[in-house]
Amino acid sequence: MDESKRSFLKRSIGLLGAAGLMAGGAREAGAVEPPEVPPSMKVPGAGMAEYGTPAKYESKVTRTLIRSQPGTTGSGASRTPLEALDGMITPSGLHFERHHSGVPDIDPDKHRLLIHGLVKRPLIFTVDALMRYPMRSRIHFLECSGNSQLLYQPAPPNFTAGQTHGLVSCSEWTGVPVRLLLEEAGVDRSAQWILAEGADAAGMSRSVPMAKAMDDAILALFQNGERLRPENGYPVRLFLPGWEGNMNVKWLRRLKVVPAPVMTKDETSRYTDLQGDGKSLMFTYPMGVKSVITRPSHGMTLRGAGLHQITGLAWSGHGTISKVEISTDGGKTWTEAPLSAPVLPRALTSFRWPWKWDGSPSVLKSRASDDTGAVQPERDRFIAEHGHNAIFHFNGIQAWSVAASGEVKHVYA
Amino acid sequence: MDESKRSFLKRSIGLLGAAGLMAGGAREAGAVEPPEVPPSMKVPGAGMAEYGTPAKYESKVTRTLIRSQPGTTGSGASRTPLEALDGMITPSGLHFERHHSGVPDIDPDKHRLLIHGLVKRPLIFTVDALMRYPMRSRIHFLECSGNSQLLYQPAPPNFTAGQTHGLVSCSEWTGVPVRLLLEEAGVDRSAQWILAEGADAAGMSRSVPMAKAMDDAILALFQNGERLRPENGYPVRLFLPGWEGNMNVKWLRRLKVVPAPVMTKDETSRYTDLQGDGKSLMFTYPMGVKSVITRPSHGMTLRGAGLHQITGLAWSGHGTISKVEISTDGGKTWTEAPLSAPVLPRALTSFRWPWKWDGSPSVLKSRASDDTGAVQPERDRFIAEHGHNAIFHFNGIQAWSVAASGEVKHVYA
Repeated sequence: MDESKRSFLKRSIGLLGAAGLMAGGAREAGAVEPPEVPPSMKVPGAGMAEYGTPAKYESKVTRTLIRSQPGTTGSGASRTPLEALDGMITPSGLHFERHHSGVPDIDPDKHRLLIHGLVKRPLIFTVDALMRYPMRSRIHFLECSGNSQLLYQPAPPNFTAGQTHGLVSCSEWTGVPVRLLLEEAGVDRSAQWILAEGADAAGMSRSVPMAKAMDDAILALFQNGERLRPENGYPVRLFLPGWEGNMNVKWLRRLKVVPAPVMTKDETSRYTDLQGDGKSLMFTYPMGVKSVITRPSHGMTLRGAGLHQITGLAWSGHGTISKVEISTDGGKTWTEAPLSAPVLPRALTSFRWPWKWDGSPSVLKSRASDDTGAVQPERDRFIAEHGHNAIFHFNGIQAWSVAASGEVKHVYA
Repeated sequence: MDESKRSFLKRSIGLLGAAGLMAGGAREAGAVEPPEVPPSMKVPGAGMAEYGTPAKYESKVTRTLIRSQPGTTGSGASRTPLEALDGMITPSGLHFERHHSGVPDIDPDKHRLLIHGLVKRPLIFTVDALMRYPMRSRIHFLECSGNSQLLYQPAPPNFTAGQTHGLVSCSEWTGVPVRLLLEEAGVDRSAQWILAEGADAAGMSRSVPMAKAMDDAILALFQNGERLRPENGYPVRLFLPGWEGNMNVKWLRRLKVVPAPVMTKDETSRYTDLQGDGKSLMFTYPMGVKSVITRPSHGMTLRGAGLHQITGLAWSGHGTISKVEISTDGGKTWTEAPLSAPVLPRALTSFRWPWKWDGSPSVLKSRASDDTGAVQPERDRFIAEHGHNAIFHFNGIQAWSVAASGEVKHVYA
């Protein structure tokens, strides 16, 4: 057992002691014999399945569907129920969705990827051809740049953690380094950008700097071990670790090597950040350092004073989480929370901290820092700098109030 | 980009060069314009879903069901299709299964966990109570001790990599350290073991050394972010990192603190290892260092000489994978393969190596080493030491032959 684990357990056991026994709600058994034999031991269980599904008792743990354009098919977003989950991996069935014209039905045998533009030799790849290239696997978060956009609003939204912050998820992504394919096509030295286009009816298109494509970009073919899910770009998507979700073009059909950004509809009419001074920011690619407490959070009720576990997630598109601090007094004082191993670059990072609640009204906050020195800002400071008009790249600190009744609500504090 | 990545890419690009262009099967585009607009761009796509499922085109990627006792319900095993997957995480829907009397239907609100025996105060926990304790998340493999048992047989089995080696899977497991609950119950100093019993109709029961329970054992509540799947012990299972699957008792209903191993039916009639000399080994808990090449593997056909990617998985119940070597000449010569980050203790570790096949008959092998110095043995040596009678703990080297036709088959070599 390593030192950090020992110290975490020591602290936890110490707090259990301080809070008295039964801290977790256990009760003393009336006898040393086991409780009545449960019904499940009296009949044979169900058979095996070729592909498993969640327990029927968990049927309420779903993505929250929010259709942004009524009358369109599949346009909008669905959010990961962060408050019901725990750990760094998001199950693929609950990975958030964001579509501009629904989920296309693409037969992988018929799909083609074209690399063209400023290259020595334009190339066309089948999916089978891509599968023959060297691959790389990495665990990375993916976050829609519109995540947490409700927090730009003047009043705190009456929503759960997942409903406000659930446009972020984390998977193991496996695919072919884009660099290998660009090298094979022979990129012209004058080319500084690539245009990535999806095979959906929205023809989603984004310009990507060549430096990113040549660094850690992959053409992802697998997600959490299996082939991509349809809503995540099956059969192949662009994946740009740490960069805003929309650029990770799904159902990828071409990469065009170009001298300058193309200024597509998807990077001018949308995905630019209107600031308080009326200017717009473009090319704001990496997602900022951010965190959210997932338990307790809005909509939950604490069952009385005593020991409670504060659990949450932190991430940064710029690098690796270096620190998460917790405040239970609205930001007056902060304590560092242990991070759950492994702490990986551009991946969700779990933090957990045992809190002994004295039963009085409290305001919970988490504040993440990353290894570039960036620190998640208070909402007030973020809004002062960026205004209320943008809908992208909100990374301010999230506050949850805990009333004396135990009720947890979203507050601006 | 770090040095290992640069060197991997350099080697890959070098081999692409050596093998000529189009190594991946790409062909030159006839024009610089994109191919015909695909049907998926002409109609709106499908809507969002509360819980996503794999693409219909992947419907053949399933667990392989092998019912060991005809006439019983749910008894037997299903295996992970390793050859169709890539990366360290196994999607929960494809995690292997092994049941002795099927999957019980357990209402989490009614489930109880008892801790009793040699303790100061016996305790009963609801699942809600367990959820209030400090938790820990870790990515770990789980392997049935009967995995690869077909390789004890005198003739090489005519099965895929998943069908022979697919009783291993890897997930992120989150739960409460067993140590915390035992400390709360107050373990008697004389107690050296715990008995773990499941709430299935088989009443699956195993004895676990106290040292393991106090070290890294957890009561797992979450798997890959969401609550456990029914077939993996919903609502709570014991999880013992690196130890044989059967001891990780699912549907856990009690932990009894005892002075010595209980010698349950599940550790005497089964899960002891009959050796060639007629003796049986018991208490063989950690799973040995092991690896398997998943692509190419039995049942596949290489499409001609040239560059091919060798992909596989390595793991050790004793610690962290330190090295994987590849041989393409049946074990005469070996080359070290790069490991995919993160390389974690007691977790599946991906390895990949680009192989330039000259088209002549070849025999592929992988050999894993771990940080305790253990090295995966050749099958011949393993059988000489252990005989043909055991069905547990086979960790010999797996060989795949590649014929001049490209056909890949299981061989003993």
